[in-house]
Amino acid sequence: MEYLELNGTKEGLSAAVDDMWVLNATYLVFYMQAGFCMLEAGVVRAKNAKSIIMKSIIDTAIGSLLFWALGFGLAFGNADKASNPVIGTSHFFLINYQNLSFFAFQWAFCATSITIVSGSLAERVHVTSCLVYTIVMSAFIYPLSAHWVWSYNGWLRMIGFNGIIDFSGSIVVHIVGGCIGLVGTYLVGPRIGRFDSESGKPKPLPGHSITIYTLGAFIIWYGFYGFNTGSTLGISGGGIAIASRSAVTMTIIACASCATTLLAIKIKSGKYDVVKSVNSLLGGLVSSAAVCSLIDPWAAFIIGCVTSFVYLGCSHLLIKLRIDDPLDSSAIHLGCGIWGALSVGLFSTQENLSLVLKKSTNVYGLFFGGGFEQLGIQLLGIIIVMAWCFFCASILFTILKKFHLLRIEPTKELMGIDIDSAGGPAYQWDN
Amino acid sequence: MEYLELNGTKEGLSAAVDDMWVLNATYLVFYMQAGFCMLEAGVVRAKNAKSIIMKSIIDTAIGSLLFWALGFGLAFGNADKASNPVIGTSHFFLINYQNLSFFAFQWAFCATSITIVSGSLAERVHVTSCLVYTIVMSAFIYPLSAHWVWSYNGWLRMIGFNGIIDFSGSIVVHIVGGCIGLVGTYLVGPRIGRFDSESGKPKPLPGHSITIYTLGAFIIWYGFYGFNTGSTLGISGGGIAIASRSAVTMTIIACASCATTLLAIKIKSGKYDVVKSVNSLLGGLVSSAAVCSLIDPWAAFIIGCVTSFVYLGCSHLLIKLRIDDPLDSSAIHLGCGIWGALSVGLFSTQENLSLVLKKSTNVYGLFFGGGFEQLGIQLLGIIIVMAWCFFCASILFTILKKFHLLRIEPTKELMGIDIDSAGGPAYQWDN
Amino acid sequence: MEYLELNGTKEGLSAAVDDMWVLNATYLVFYMQAGFCMLEAGVVRAKNAKSIIMKSIIDTAIGSLLFWALGFGLAFGNADKASNPVIGTSHFFLINYQNLSFFAFQWAFCATSITIVSGSLAERVHVTSCLVYTIVMSAFIYPLSAHWVWSYNGWLRMIGFNGIIDFSGSIVVHIVGGCIGLVGTYLVGPRIGRFDSESGKPKPLPGHSITIYTLGAFIIWYGFYGFNTGSTLGISGGGIAIASRSAVTMTIIACASCATTLLAIKIKSGKYDVVKSVNSLLGGLVSSAAVCSLIDPWAAFIIGCVTSFVYLGCSHLLIKLRIDDPLDSSAIHLGCGIWGALSVGLFSTQENLSLVLKKSTNVYGLFFGGGFEQLGIQLLGIIIVMAWCFFCASILFTILKKFHLLRIEPTKELMGIDIDSAGGPAYQWDN
Repeated sequence: MEYLELNGTKEGLSAAVDDMWVLNATYLVFYMQAGFCMLEAGVVRAKNAKSIIMKSIIDTAIGSLLFWALGFGLAFGNADKASNPVIGTSHFFLINYQNLSFFAFQWAFCATSITIVSGSLAERVHVTSCLVYTIVMSAFIYPLSAHWVWSYNGWLRMIGFNGIIDFSGSIVVHIVGGCIGLVGTYLVGPRIGRFDSESGKPKPLPGHSITIYTLGAFIIWYGFYGFNTGSTLGISGGGIAIASRSAVTMTIIACASCATTLLAIKIKSGKYDVVKSVNSLLGGLVSSAAVCSLIDPWAAFIIGCVTSFVYLGCSHLLIKLRIDDPLDSSAIHLGCGIWGALSVGLFSTQENLSLVLKKSTNVYGLFFGGGFEQLGIQLLGIIIVMAWCFFCASILFTILKKFHLLRIEPTKELMGIDIDSAGGPAYQWDN
Repeated sequence: MEYLELNGTKEGLSAAVDDMWVLNATYLVFYMQAGFCMLEAGVVRAKNAKSIIMKSIIDTAIGSLLFWALGFGLAFGNADKASNPVIGTSHFFLINYQNLSFFAFQWAFCATSITIVSGSLAERVHVTSCLVYTIVMSAFIYPLSAHWVWSYNGWLRMIGFNGIIDFSGSIVVHIVGGCIGLVGTYLVGPRIGRFDSESGKPKPLPGHSITIYTLGAFIIWYGFYGFNTGSTLGISGGGIAIASRSAVTMTIIACASCATTLLAIKIKSGKYDVVKSVNSLLGGLVSSAAVCSLIDPWAAFIIGCVTSFVYLGCSHLLIKLRIDDPLDSSAIHLGCGIWGALSVGLFSTQENLSLVLKKSTNVYGLFFGGGFEQLGIQLLGIIIVMAWCFFCASILFTILKKFHLLRIEPTKELMGIDIDSAGGPAYQWDN
Repeated sequence: MEYLELNGTKEGLSAAVDDMWVLNATYLVFYMQAGFCMLEAGVVRAKNAKSIIMKSIIDTAIGSLLFWALGFGLAFGNADKASNPVIGTSHFFLINYQNLSFFAFQWAFCATSITIVSGSLAERVHVTSCLVYTIVMSAFIYPLSAHWVWSYNGWLRMIGFNGIIDFSGSIVVHIVGGCIGLVGTYLVGPRIGRFDSESGKPKPLPGHSITIYTLGAFIIWYGFYGFNTGSTLGISGGGIAIASRSAVTMTIIACASCATTLLAIKIKSGKYDVVKSVNSLLGGLVSSAAVCSLIDPWAAFIIGCVTSFVYLGCSHLLIKLRIDDPLDSSAIHLGCGIWGALSVGLFSTQENLSLVLKKSTNVYGLFFGGGFEQLGIQLLGIIIVMAWCFFCASILFTILKKFHLLRIEPTKELMGIDIDSAGGPAYQWDN
């Protein structure tokens, strides 16, 4: 059996093993949907658990269908090799496309990006709004970002010597998801009771199950091994060494970020804060996506420690700005995503970068003497993708608002979305 | 190290990689036990959660031991190559059997089939009945079905040019489990309060945790990647391409089925229905088992959309017939299993079928001009296996009923099985 | 890309596939953290759920950083090949170390060992004590045990013809964790109310969610496939056959142990006991770690049945001695760990042992005529490692006690640790 690869043909056991690697990673990334679903369900109040689960299901099912039909073609449809750097133009519905393990992996990535948004919008928007932004994201916003950053002829890939580097998606997946969520949560406004109506002081609205929330985070961590190490797209030709490095550095970043936060909060307040510690762990995973394959373990430790403060700072800033992001999704995915993408320009070593790019390069991390070029390109890419997402999301959510599809009525918000939209509560303890 | 394969000998890295593939898939399929356990626990009332968890543990532990001791030999014990087409006769207790990864994979499949039944029988039968049907299923009913359909000399494998095709068990696993559950739930009767005693109208008895239920479904989805793609039994010789195709088509079927149901119910009732949407996702996975390797993505989409209506129709029919299947297990596993097995005869392309069978064939899907033969054989196989299951299950549950081992007393049913049989409730919130 | 292996150099696809195997197993072992977290959270009372989750996060995050910085070097730092048999002396912070998949696998093992302890100490110790013992364990106690038993020049590896055999850590991981937990729980004393203050009779303090508890156990089971079969460190050169055997025997041991317990308790008390059945399943997994690769399936069945009584006996003994181990962690990990390590000396076959050791040996299981040597060495190793852990843990917990960092005040214990130390309860059902 022979089949075409995106960049040529492969054959034999080596090719089969590479595809197996990608396929196994795909399973892990799809399993992250379970993690996000639990994370989001646990951190909302019980009265909104069922509807946020519904949103998880919607973004998975509907988003996957749209990405299969349209999104993948827009992102990676370069059949004629002359296709333009802004948008892909072939392979819609997988027509004439054979590299199904690559498709499946990209598919799972898109699902991850979409699922981030429902966290920012939790507890006060219509389920139907989720249906709409899922369609727009999977069929339009995400694919174009992916094309620019990841497709071999994407325009951000062609800037400078290396092009933009986003190994497994701090930009394409997390900044995109975090950005769209941030615009949404800003436009929809805070949950009733989140900020005192007179003093403006924040009041905690704690989630209903830290257990379910933490379970979700652990599942996401597990899935991230597929997310980050599957991005080698194979183990042959040195791929496994890059994958091993990525697994180690991502774990160090996540643990360092988590440990820094938990110790910092303990020292400051005398308490241990599970939610912020776990969010920092997630922030570390997000940071690691862009950079994990390019750094040495000690640099991972530094990146992780900084991630903690990036997350805590962004979370604090959101509150200062009276923006209510129930899961801190934009702090985690946008804030730490930006830090991860920038750290490529700071910490990448020449050796690691050459291995990943499969060519020698003299442009690498600033801290190792690799100059400002990569950092500049990363910054440019971040700005471009954020501008793109802000632009699209502003239009999208404004239209939704106009048609009264965004925010539910106050009485229903107080009662909980589940009874109104999902036919009843998520829990029944007394029958 | 050399060892015998079921169909000959293999050696070297290629064989090792193939076994690794099967072994990794086996882990995923065993992990589905966690999914089924959570799915069933979440959808029953809190007072019955502990005992249904006990049933999950029983079918896993006892069923696995029996299948090791007896079941595998009856299903795949063909040591002398002359063994008969009805029943295997060797390798009991794994004596003189070396292909342990193949055994492990089949083992996990048997466990999956058994665990389906406890869903249909939830909330009103003795835990001990589970012990009995687990033994009978793992040591007798399941192995014979598996022998007929999957063993190279099974009699249903030898009918027609291709023989019956059940790639990863819509028939052997899901129809068997769904059928036995249906007979059981019919004979045991509905739960108290499920149908109004005067009007006969159904009254919902909602489960206690949609969160746990959905978690279970996501875990099952994840495990299904092992279930469906491990059935290539290797990645060499084109196996990985079949696996990649299977992963993609199964995801499309599941998402299309889920999306169709959630939109259909939203349009009809104005509400989003998590349970029915998730059940449709599961129904899609069940349908995909037989057919995932044989179809093109667009056909997967159609099969998925139809699956939604198959599930909803079967679920509706059960209520019409006053059959109370608390998890809709028979609608999902029997109903969608039948549809999946039939769709092999409708949608299989000549190319895909030839690749899977490793021989050229002119008998394939009706819709592609492959004639009625395959559809006929699939239908025959479904009828035979269903008849076998109905026959065995009728005897089994009738005997259980006679010995008062089936249904618990009404007072205990109202009180909950947990306090009676499992030493106390599953949850304690206030200590 | 070339990189050094611990025991020489490898190249090409075969080496890549071996590393892939180890890496995938590593992911599974890290995922066990989710399992332990859920297991422990479910079996404590709701008022202590959040703080025990915090402990899981601490031992994962802090423990991983310490093992990267110090532990791995002490355990496996043999760069100069002349390093001493008691302690490793190089590769701290992974300096000059390239075999990152091997490191990652060992890393995940260390995290598993540490996480065992918090179960024994549940519901009555300061969160901060967890911080301290995590540091000491990951940077000192665990690495030395690992060096003695697993490093190629560890002194217990060099005794007798085969050296001590602990395939995947009944001794290094489970006895170490179980032992330290036992010392801790003994020194900290029972929870208030666990034993009647007058009669001394035990009173059950049931956990708050059997569902979450069982989920944890299933996840641990799943992770154990990585734990036990990843220990082949590859699939080439016969590794996959050892892995397949290990997967099959571990499943039989676990199922036999679980089935024996559930039937024994049902026969004795008329009830089904989920917690004890699941604990026996876990005990079976623990037993299997040392021995799974060395035995035939029927021996696995016997080892499993005995494991059940080992667990039940140890659990009973703890109560007799008025030692309150809320999760029965020491019964499961220490008790069954000892049994597993001893069974190597009883049930190992010559053929299997030779395959695993990659050399012919005449020293094997006593029951197969292999003499007393291996049994003696196993016993010696168990005693040495236990003495080491008792010694270190006694000093550690005594110091913690002296500084009032061990046991929380009685009023806070009655109120629950969560409100005192973790900023509020894990659950909020009514907002």
